[in-house]
Amino acid sequence: MALPKRIVIHELGPREGMQIEKNPVDTSEKIRLVDMLSECHFHEIEVTSFVSPKWVPQMADAEQVVAGIRRAEGTRYTAIYLNTQGLQRAVMTAKLDVEGSLSITASEAFSKKNTNRSIAETLAETEKRIEGFQRFGIRPHEVSVMAAFGCNYEGDISPDHVVGLISQLMDMAEQNQYDISMIQLADTMGWANPEAIRRLVGKVQDRWPTRRINLHLHDTRGMGLMNAFAALEMGVDDFDSAVAGLGGCPYAGFKDAPGNIATEDLVHMCHEMGIETGVDLERLLDVAREAERIVGHPLPGKVMRGGHLNSYRRAAAAARAAQ
Amino acid sequence: MALPKRIVIHELGPREGMQIEKNPVDTSEKIRLVDMLSECHFHEIEVTSFVSPKWVPQMADAEQVVAGIRRAEGTRYTAIYLNTQGLQRAVMTAKLDVEGSLSITASEAFSKKNTNRSIAETLAETEKRIEGFQRFGIRPHEVSVMAAFGCNYEGDISPDHVVGLISQLMDMAEQNQYDISMIQLADTMGWANPEAIRRLVGKVQDRWPTRRINLHLHDTRGMGLMNAFAALEMGVDDFDSAVAGLGGCPYAGFKDAPGNIATEDLVHMCHEMGIETGVDLERLLDVAREAERIVGHPLPGKVMRGGHLNSYRRAAAAARAAQ
Repeated sequence: MALPKRIVIHELGPREGMQIEKNPVDTSEKIRLVDMLSECHFHEIEVTSFVSPKWVPQMADAEQVVAGIRRAEGTRYTAIYLNTQGLQRAVMTAKLDVEGSLSITASEAFSKKNTNRSIAETLAETEKRIEGFQRFGIRPHEVSVMAAFGCNYEGDISPDHVVGLISQLMDMAEQNQYDISMIQLADTMGWANPEAIRRLVGKVQDRWPTRRINLHLHDTRGMGLMNAFAALEMGVDDFDSAVAGLGGCPYAGFKDAPGNIATEDLVHMCHEMGIETGVDLERLLDVAREAERIVGHPLPGKVMRGGHLNSYRRAAAAARAAQ
Repeated sequence: MALPKRIVIHELGPREGMQIEKNPVDTSEKIRLVDMLSECHFHEIEVTSFVSPKWVPQMADAEQVVAGIRRAEGTRYTAIYLNTQGLQRAVMTAKLDVEGSLSITASEAFSKKNTNRSIAETLAETEKRIEGFQRFGIRPHEVSVMAAFGCNYEGDISPDHVVGLISQLMDMAEQNQYDISMIQLADTMGWANPEAIRRLVGKVQDRWPTRRINLHLHDTRGMGLMNAFAALEMGVDDFDSAVAGLGGCPYAGFKDAPGNIATEDLVHMCHEMGIETGVDLERLLDVAREAERIVGHPLPGKVMRGGHLNSYRRAAAAARAAQ
């Protein structure tokens, strides 16, 4: 299949990045990071996460961060939450684009470790989540499966199992007359490879040909960007990523492994192949370098070190002109 | 095209890695690194480089390194050299598999900066190189083009220009009745992307369908492994890489950018897709972690941090069995 002409990128750096940092990041720095990202013209920026400060103290300032940011025209500002209490906090900010999603973890073992509930229990509790959505007038448009390719605690996850879970969530959505336009497949622990992407994406496309697919890819074993490319070749045009490769999964059982694919590396790769992203890459590279300064340690993004090829093209052209 | 069933990997870490390190690495550590790599069953290990100690003081101990290593059965031990003097030093060790290659840099600007000679001058001097080969009974089997996809000083490099250069080298090889079995395309400064790989590899395959292609890929902008995958899909089955992602190009005008693709990440990716490499990945991951200790700073390899998926599969199976 021909590569898509244009893709949509969901920037998760502020949320994915800040929840995993060991050293506290000042609220003002979190706000500054979002504001800088706002200059890059993203479709969406995930600003923060409304979770219990007991479990994730790094996100205790979620409300202050949201209060401090400046919204830019054309960008959606979202947040994640895990229960109705978190949803309420997000709604109460009156400043976010609060979205709902019907989500599940495909790994039984990870589901228990991460949320203390089995897959069946999570599905059963989805009715309660739907009540929460109704209370705040949220109509989910997305179905999401985490650990869709494999799990550090469970091993490989079969594509048919994932399709079965999506099907159950789709049934629930239909019962509530939700218009599901997006199916998200998350490779939460970096298990995918290009062949696995083709198998699962192919099955989902065959079963739900009119739904858009979003891929949330982690670069844990260096295959993240390659998996994005394999998905682009299948027509997937919607991706999550995090500036500079901020973040990772604090519950996924490994240390210092790369998290999400780096947004600027994804954008650079797309632009090099003529795929539009709408993102201002020059500005984004500045933000990636600034993100490193904010967290105070190296981050995995590569183009911020290797350099934007266009800057070398310009310098080479100037050198030729000067001869 | 179906992915190849098996690929050959040339391990360049000891050479690529040691020539770029700012802090001197003990000769004994260099020897230890090669000896550890010898336990991983590579087709080839590039041990060192016979270059002027005036320009590359890190490689002044090339003879001592070669004298110290233990050769393992089934592995070729090679070195690079840039002139007849270096070739003589390699031959004099009486312990290496000394190979010859007819090579050129596709970038005029980089050729001048790196070797102080234009492309035309380098081609003209190839006759002298061939005399050197004859003197030591070396019969080159490889034609090699560096900066084959682009150059930080020159910008993009056209595939037709590269094919033209290969053609000139092939003519010289024919005049000398060399049996050229391999064409190496080196992305010395990390300019390739999957589309560019397809264009150039496609042209080379069309023109020289019986020759094997080797790809030497740098991960400067995070696209190295993705480019390897694109090449695998074109049937390319011969790759250079460096354990832990050691190395880089000291003359390429940037700092701290990743160098060669990390061998263990390439091997892991191949094994995940059922492509054999013959390499012992478990042992190689130990070596990658040891390589970090030897150079004393983090290296870009990812699987050594994210973990071999097979180890998680085993643990998950054991956990299930214990329930």
